Amino acid sequence: MPKTTTVGQYLIHRIQELGVNHVFGVPGDYVLGFYDMLVESDLHVVGTCTEAGAGFAADAYARVSGLGVVCITYCVGGLNALNSVAGAYAEKSPMVVISGAPGLGERDRSPLLHHKVRDFTTQLEIFEKVTVASVAIEEAGSAPRLIDETLEECRRRMRPVYIELPRDIVDKRCPAPQPWKPRRLVSDKPALKEAVAEAAEMLRSAKRPVILAGVEIHRFGLQNTLLKLVKKLGCPVAATLLGKSVITENHPQYMGIYEGAMGREDVCRRVESADCVLILGAFMTDINLGIDTANLEVAKTINATSERIAIKHHIYEDVKLKHFIDALGEAKIGPRRTFTFKHPKPRPYRPRKNAPMTIARFFQRMNEQLHEKTVVICDIGDSLFGAADLTIHRHTEFLSPAYYTSMGFAVPAAIGAQMGNPRLRPIVFVGDGAFQMTGQELSTIAKEGLNPIVFVLNNKGYSTERFINDGPYNDIHDWAFDKMPELLRAGFGCEVHTETDLEEALEATKRHRKEFCIINVHLDPYDRSAAMERLGKRIGKRV
Amino acid sequence: MPKTTTVGQYLIHRIQELGVNHVFGVPGDYVLGFYDMLVESDLHVVGTCTEAGAGFAADAYARVSGLGVVCITYCVGGLNALNSVAGAYAEKSPMVVISGAPGLGERDRSPLLHHKVRDFTTQLEIFEKVTVASVAIEEAGSAPRLIDETLEECRRRMRPVYIELPRDIVDKRCPAPQPWKPRRLVSDKPALKEAVAEAAEMLRSAKRPVILAGVEIHRFGLQNTLLKLVKKLGCPVAATLLGKSVITENHPQYMGIYEGAMGREDVCRRVESADCVLILGAFMTDINLGIDTANLEVAKTINATSERIAIKHHIYEDVKLKHFIDALGEAKIGPRRTFTFKHPKPRPYRPRKNAPMTIARFFQRMNEQLHEKTVVICDIGDSLFGAADLTIHRHTEFLSPAYYTSMGFAVPAAIGAQMGNPRLRPIVFVGDGAFQMTGQELSTIAKEGLNPIVFVLNNKGYSTERFINDGPYNDIHDWAFDKMPELLRAGFGCEVHTETDLEEALEATKRHRKEFCIINVHLDPYDRSAAMERLGKRIGKRV
Repeated sequence: MPKTTTVGQYLIHRIQELGVNHVFGVPGDYVLGFYDMLVESDLHVVGTCTEAGAGFAADAYARVSGLGVVCITYCVGGLNALNSVAGAYAEKSPMVVISGAPGLGERDRSPLLHHKVRDFTTQLEIFEKVTVASVAIEEAGSAPRLIDETLEECRRRMRPVYIELPRDIVDKRCPAPQPWKPRRLVSDKPALKEAVAEAAEMLRSAKRPVILAGVEIHRFGLQNTLLKLVKKLGCPVAATLLGKSVITENHPQYMGIYEGAMGREDVCRRVESADCVLILGAFMTDINLGIDTANLEVAKTINATSERIAIKHHIYEDVKLKHFIDALGEAKIGPRRTFTFKHPKPRPYRPRKNAPMTIARFFQRMNEQLHEKTVVICDIGDSLFGAADLTIHRHTEFLSPAYYTSMGFAVPAAIGAQMGNPRLRPIVFVGDGAFQMTGQELSTIAKEGLNPIVFVLNNKGYSTERFINDGPYNDIHDWAFDKMPELLRAGFGCEVHTETDLEEALEATKRHRKEFCIINVHLDPYDRSAAMERLGKRIGKRV
Repeated sequence: MPKTTTVGQYLIHRIQELGVNHVFGVPGDYVLGFYDMLVESDLHVVGTCTEAGAGFAADAYARVSGLGVVCITYCVGGLNALNSVAGAYAEKSPMVVISGAPGLGERDRSPLLHHKVRDFTTQLEIFEKVTVASVAIEEAGSAPRLIDETLEECRRRMRPVYIELPRDIVDKRCPAPQPWKPRRLVSDKPALKEAVAEAAEMLRSAKRPVILAGVEIHRFGLQNTLLKLVKKLGCPVAATLLGKSVITENHPQYMGIYEGAMGREDVCRRVESADCVLILGAFMTDINLGIDTANLEVAKTINATSERIAIKHHIYEDVKLKHFIDALGEAKIGPRRTFTFKHPKPRPYRPRKNAPMTIARFFQRMNEQLHEKTVVICDIGDSLFGAADLTIHRHTEFLSPAYYTSMGFAVPAAIGAQMGNPRLRPIVFVGDGAFQMTGQELSTIAKEGLNPIVFVLNNKGYSTERFINDGPYNDIHDWAFDKMPELLRAGFGCEVHTETDLEEALEATKRHRKEFCIINVHLDPYDRSAAMERLGKRIGKRV
C-alpha cells in the first residue's frame, strides 16, 4: 500500500473497512469531487429524491447491517437531512453524515457563497446538536486522526456523527490508513463484579423474574448473548415496541410487546407482577412505556443500557452493557424451571366476501403473510400500533421509528433495509399522510430495481391526531396512491376496498415479485386498531 | 376588549394585526391545541404535505405580501422545516416559525417524550442559528412582551424568527394585546447628513453614474422611493438576479440584470464602465456577482443596504436604508439628461412545426406569455438561469431563491405566492430533480383550488451539475410528470416534445384556467441556456 492517499480516499477506505457497501445521498456542487471518488470506489452510490429520504434510508441500512452513510451537499442538502439524522440520534442508529462544504480557499474571496446561511460554521454547529461527534476537516495532515476518532465515536455510541469536507480538502494528500483498530470496551472491573453479583442475587432470590429486552440488544449485536441468558434464567421475556424482533417472536419464553396499559393485557400483568424485572438495552420512552401507563417499581428492576447499569435506585456508571450481560450469563443463578409461553393460536383468517376492509382484519391477514424472507417496516400511526399486535411466528425483522415517531420513515427506509440485506423483501405499512411526505422515494426504489410491497393504509387523514384532537386540519387530500406506477413508469399498483380485494392484491404481489407493489388500502377515516384507541385516549388526557 | 386573553390568542391577534391571513403547516400532537385556536380564528390554515413545503410556501407568501407564518410540531416538524427557514434567513424573507413543544409540566414526569432528540432545548438552539430571534414561551405573564419583541425583530430585520409554544402554555391567561406600535427606525442624524452629502457629491460630479437595485428594495417596500430617485438621477438602472422585478422591467431607464460576465454583455459593460455605481439594497453574493466575474471598483461605489451604508472604503453604521434613499431623493443632484435604454425588440416567436423543444426557444416563447396577472416562480438550475434572460415587458413579479439556491422551492412557493396575491396566476419553472423533491405539494395546490401552470423542464437529471462535473449520479429516474393529475385526481397534465406541442399545451392552459396545469417539457439532457453554460464553466474552474 502506498504511504499516502487523499483525504477523500482515506474516508472511503475506512467506511468500507467498517462493512459499508452503499452510500445514500443527493449530489450537489460542493460535494461533487467526493462523489467522483465514491463512484470510482467499490461503494454503490444510491441517489435518492431528497436528502431526508437518504437519511431515512441510511438509518434503516444501519439498523439492518450495522452502519449507514449519507453523503450530501452543504446546507441545502445537510439541513434537509437533519430531521432524519435527529431520528437516528434519538433511537441510537449509527450513521455517518458526510457533507461537502465551500472550499477553505474560496471563503475569504467571496464571503457570500451560495447555500450559505449565516457563517461557514453554521451547519457544523447545528449538527453538533444531533450527533455524538462532529468535525470539519480543515487540514489534510490531521484528517486521518479526526476521521478515525469520529468514526470510533459512531461505533462506540451507536449514534450519528458528522464529517464536513470542504471541497478543496478532498484531494489533498494525507497518510495512508493503518489497519482499523477499534478501541477496546473497558468496564471498571470491581464495579462490574459488584453489579453482576448484586443482579445475580436479585435474580436468584426472585420467584417470578422477567426479562424486558430493548433495541440496544440489536444495535450492539447482543442477540446471541441475550438468548443464552434467556435460556439460563428460564424466565419469561418481553420486548419493548422499539425493540420488537430483538428476540425471535416464536421463542417459547417470549410473551410479546410490553408497553404498559397500551399493550396486551396478559403481557402487562406478567411483567408488572414480576418480583424482579431485568431490563436490557431498552429506552424508557413515553411510547415504549405506553404513555405513562407502565407501572414498574424501580426497587424491583435491574436496568442495563449502553449508558449505565442501574440496579434499584443506584447506578454503576462504568460498566458496559455487553460485559454485564456476558458476566450475568456466567453467574451462578439457575437452574430454574423453564417458563413456556402458550402463544395463542392465531385465529385462522378466512376472507369474507366483499366485506369492507378494516384495520383489525388487515393486520390479522398480514400476520399470515410474514415469513423469514420479509422485513416489516412501519411508519407512524396505525401502521405502527396496529403492527405492534402482530404475533410474528417466525423470525422477522421489524423496523420502525417507535420513539422519535417521525412520519415519512417507512418508504425510504425500505431502500436501506433491502440494500442492507438483499435477501429480504420489505413489507411496508405506511399511512396516507406519511406517504405524502416521502412516498416519492418509490422512484429510487424503481431506479434501483428493489421490490418492496407497500401498503398505504389510507384513511384520508392524520388518524392518530383525530383520536387526540379532531379538527379539519387532520383531513388530507385523497391521492390515487395506486397510480404511482403510472407516474414512475414502474411497479404494480392496485386498490383494496374489501377483503376479497386484499386476497387478489396479495396474489398479484406474488406475480409482480421483481418490482415494487403499492396497495392503496381504503379504510374508514375513523377505523383504528385497539392499540391506537387506547393510545389516543391516553395522549389526549395529557394535553 | 377584555383585559386578558390566552397566550395562543395573543399570538394569533398579533399575526393578524401584521397583515397575515394564511398560516402554513402540518399539524402534530404537540401543537394541536394551538391549531384549534387557529381554526377558530379568521386565519386560513393551509395544511401542506411536508413541513419543508410549508416553509417554502410561507417564504413566498412573505415575499409577495410582507410576512409569512409557518406552524408545525416539535422536532419531527420543526427540523423538517429548517432548510426552508435557513433559505428565508439567507435571502431576507420575514417569516415567523411557530412550533409546538412538550408541555412544561410533563417534562419532568417523563423525560423521554416522543419527538425529543437530545434535550428539551435542542430545537430552540438549532433555530437560533437560522433566525434573528428565538424564544420559548415558558411563562404566560411575560408572553406578550416576548412575542412582541420577537415579531418586532422579524419586521425590523426582515428575517425569520422562532417562537416555541409548550402545549400547556397555549391556553394560559395573559394580558390582552395593546395596539401594535412598531419601533421607529432611527438613523444617527449627523451621520445620515454626512453620508447623503458625500453620496450626492459623488453623483453630482459623476459623468456616467448607474444604479444597481437589489431585493431589499422589495423587502422594505421602497419601490416607489427607488422610482423617484431613478427619475431624479436620470441615469440607467440595472437589477441583481435576486432583485429581478424590484423595478418594472419596461421602465425606460431599466437595462436588465447585472451579474458580471454571467449576464448580458451590454449591461455588464455599462455598469462596469460607470464612474459611480449606486448600489441599493443588494446582497453581494457569488451568484448575484456572476461567480466572481463582477468587476466593480469599490472606490466608485455607494453601497447601501439595510445593514449599513458603505461609500468607497468607509462605512456609516447607523444610517437606515430608507432614510438614506429618501434623503438622497431630496438632495440637490440633478438635473441630468435622462438616459433611455433601447430595449431590444424581442425576436418574434413563430413555432416551427415539430421542431424539438430547446431551452432557448422555450424561454423565447415564454417571454410572450407573461403579463400583469402572472407571477414567475423559478426553481434552481436553468429554471432560474434561463428565466433570468427573460425580458419581462410588463410588470411581473419574479420569485426565486437565487442566492441560497435550495432545490424544491418553486412548487410550494406557488402556494404561498398565490395565496399572498390571489389575482396572480403563478407560472412555475422547475427542473425534474427539483420537482422530485417537493412536487407532491401539487396536492396542496389541488386541495386549495389554486391554478398555477407548472412547467417541468425535464432533462432527466441534475443539469447544473452536469456542467460542473458530469457523473452517473447526475442522472435521475424519468417520471411521467404529466401523470400527476391522475395521482392527485385533479388538474391537467400534458407532454411537450416539440414546438408544436408547446403551442397546444399553452392553449390547453387557457381552457384549464381554474385548475393547476403541469407540462412535462422534454429536453435534451445536455441542452442548456447560454447563462447556464457560462455559469457551469465558471463554477467548474473554482472547484
